[in-house]
Amino acid sequence: MKAGVVRAGIVVTGTEVITGRIADANGPWVSERLAELGVEVAHIIVVADRPDDLEHALDFLAAEGMDLIVTSGGLGPTADDLTGEIVARFAGRPLELDAEMEAKIAAILRRFASTRGIKFDEAAVMEANRKQAMVPAGAEALDPVGTAPGLVVPAGERVVVVLPGPPRELQPMWPVALATDAVRAVLARATPLHGLTMRMFGVPESEIAKSLREIEAQDGVDVDAVEITTCLRRGEIEIDVRWREETEATALAVRDGLVRRHPGETFSLDGETIDEQVAKLLRGHRLGLAESCSAGLLAARITDVPGASDYFAGSAVTYSYEAKEELLGVPKALLEEKGAVSPEVAAAMAQGALERFGADVAVAITGIAGPGGGTAEKPVGYVCFDARLADGTGIAVDRVIPGDRTDIRERSALVAMHLLRRLLGGEVSDSRP
Amino acid sequence: MKAGVVRAGIVVTGTEVITGRIADANGPWVSERLAELGVEVAHIIVVADRPDDLEHALDFLAAEGMDLIVTSGGLGPTADDLTGEIVARFAGRPLELDAEMEAKIAAILRRFASTRGIKFDEAAVMEANRKQAMVPAGAEALDPVGTAPGLVVPAGERVVVVLPGPPRELQPMWPVALATDAVRAVLARATPLHGLTMRMFGVPESEIAKSLREIEAQDGVDVDAVEITTCLRRGEIEIDVRWREETEATALAVRDGLVRRHPGETFSLDGETIDEQVAKLLRGHRLGLAESCSAGLLAARITDVPGASDYFAGSAVTYSYEAKEELLGVPKALLEEKGAVSPEVAAAMAQGALERFGADVAVAITGIAGPGGGTAEKPVGYVCFDARLADGTGIAVDRVIPGDRTDIRERSALVAMHLLRRLLGGEVSDSRP
Repeated sequence: MKAGVVRAGIVVTGTEVITGRIADANGPWVSERLAELGVEVAHIIVVADRPDDLEHALDFLAAEGMDLIVTSGGLGPTADDLTGEIVARFAGRPLELDAEMEAKIAAILRRFASTRGIKFDEAAVMEANRKQAMVPAGAEALDPVGTAPGLVVPAGERVVVVLPGPPRELQPMWPVALATDAVRAVLARATPLHGLTMRMFGVPESEIAKSLREIEAQDGVDVDAVEITTCLRRGEIEIDVRWREETEATALAVRDGLVRRHPGETFSLDGETIDEQVAKLLRGHRLGLAESCSAGLLAARITDVPGASDYFAGSAVTYSYEAKEELLGVPKALLEEKGAVSPEVAAAMAQGALERFGADVAVAITGIAGPGGGTAEKPVGYVCFDARLADGTGIAVDRVIPGDRTDIRERSALVAMHLLRRLLGGEVSDSRP
Repeated sequence: MKAGVVRAGIVVTGTEVITGRIADANGPWVSERLAELGVEVAHIIVVADRPDDLEHALDFLAAEGMDLIVTSGGLGPTADDLTGEIVARFAGRPLELDAEMEAKIAAILRRFASTRGIKFDEAAVMEANRKQAMVPAGAEALDPVGTAPGLVVPAGERVVVVLPGPPRELQPMWPVALATDAVRAVLARATPLHGLTMRMFGVPESEIAKSLREIEAQDGVDVDAVEITTCLRRGEIEIDVRWREETEATALAVRDGLVRRHPGETFSLDGETIDEQVAKLLRGHRLGLAESCSAGLLAARITDVPGASDYFAGSAVTYSYEAKEELLGVPKALLEEKGAVSPEVAAAMAQGALERFGADVAVAITGIAGPGGGTAEKPVGYVCFDARLADGTGIAVDRVIPGDRTDIRERSALVAMHLLRRLLGGEVSDSRP
């Protein structure tokens, strides 16, 4: 083992993952967490629910000299769920019934059954959950988040962390696994990476690559001394810079060089998302929305944040002409003259949302999500936005958004989020026709 | 090798994949294609761009006795792109320059550069692309879809198919790889699998496991003779049954046994999704929605289907009391007396949606998504639904939905979809108080 280098392998089990019916979220998630801790992930292996394949994958990772192995899945009560048994054999530790864990699982199942009004067959369930309470001798069991406990199993020179498959169970269990003595001992040998995340909107990814080359050539920064990954994520650019202690100055020079080159597009230097920023800016306001092509996606996004009811009044999702008239008071003559997708109708929708919701800030979105409905003048992807304050000032923009129906709908909601940020951040550039 | 069983392993290369920056689309895609051909995929391995890790993954798959190995990625012109070289070494075949391929790549790059207005440094590009034109002796090169050729490399008892990383290049190259003699010879030994997909709603996954045991014990069906995977997907159970020719009767007996045990919960026998079913049922209708806790998620789901504007009028997303009064005409007195989350308000919201949208079918959702706002009587997750036709008949139900805010919101939209299916399918069981 290189000093300071701790290597890990991840094994994701599940026939539904290997057949592509479910996308694996756990491998990449665990890999990212390990990278933050300075651990080098060498392999992510997806195996079907066949015991031999899992066992061989573990043997392979052991032969590759991994210090840490993380598994996900195969902890359920069914016959297919064999991870505990196989890891126990791999570690050479016999399985023993953990009576305390058995009681915990039974209590959880009883509660689940009662809140869902399901008849609870105590004997059958105890039979099934007994298997989940079997723990390899000398291993540490982690309390269930759902119904399956996790495990931390010392196996010779390495440690195996056994986690459940559902991400909502795996993710909360992760810090618990990290806090065990066995995992801490492994991680203590790794040099942690520091990191920062920047976000930009409205700049192509290729421009960032170009800027990085400039930062190297013009600013004389040794860009390769730090780890930089840029990725296009839901229409925004996420730039991740990671460094070890000694190259901190380089990392900050990269950040500053990027901001200097893209001041208008950089909206976050601390990883804060647009949703978090807009939620903060909306405090003390009252927001009403008027949506056509985004059809509720903006409302859903705004209300994804707990506590949104403090500032969110509602959204009039109006697909038909009649709904735009009835719910938002858009004049029929305007709809007929300008068409439902027009800057004028967007403005009238925003005005309607301000009035009907008694709001002091409103955003309207109307566009052509496709695949049908486009014309030469107004192609598929043409979307009109109007973000407006009660005093009449605001920002109106049109865009032709590329991509398919899903892209156009989601991107519409994203553009509206950025308009809200700009509007509530004090920028008013009324381009309303 | 078992007669008729051909096993495959997939190796996905790329640091951006292993770090979770990019979700791997290739492993699952290739795996699904192979399953359709009757090939059993044992492992999908993701490795970083480190030559040793890739070589060891290939050695592992060879040791596991795979008949076919498919790799994706690492075919670019940069120093990191080492897949061709490593597969050549793995197969024991020296690399040789394929002059014809070199000329093809040069022509492609020249065309790219000219259409994008990039200055084309012929010498540098020839230097870089030479590497991409190196083919292991005795292997077959596959014409590039982008700029990287693929390879089909015989390696002892097995065949390695080497494909580029970008899905838009990999996917069109796949049929070309299948058509090569070497791959055809491997696939000829596989027996294709047949499959069916069933969907259920409102039954826990554990009940399916129990029913399968009963089908074995009571109906005398050899359940293990076919491949059954059940998975919980967005709140529904998806059951996938796969079989080879000779066990077709078993597969159908499994299907029939499950339907007999869960007649009310089985809503799809042919893989059709609830969204597709509801879209069909809505044809000729006019739908209006009234959403509170789901906050546009139901509208977004309904309109995800192209052509939804034929039957979808809109959704009044009403978070505040005032919005419920103003947009849906819910009486203030009713809101104050019963509370915004109550069967009575749900009914008034549905009635309001029928009227305001001029609809003949409406669904209302009002609930407590949390994390705050719950009481002993109306806990977080308590949601009232009212699905109503213009003639006043309908279905009203209350549920306490488990999980976090996201789960409760999404599940609310799902419950509403199933109410729409039942209502439009002719089931009217007015339980309105």
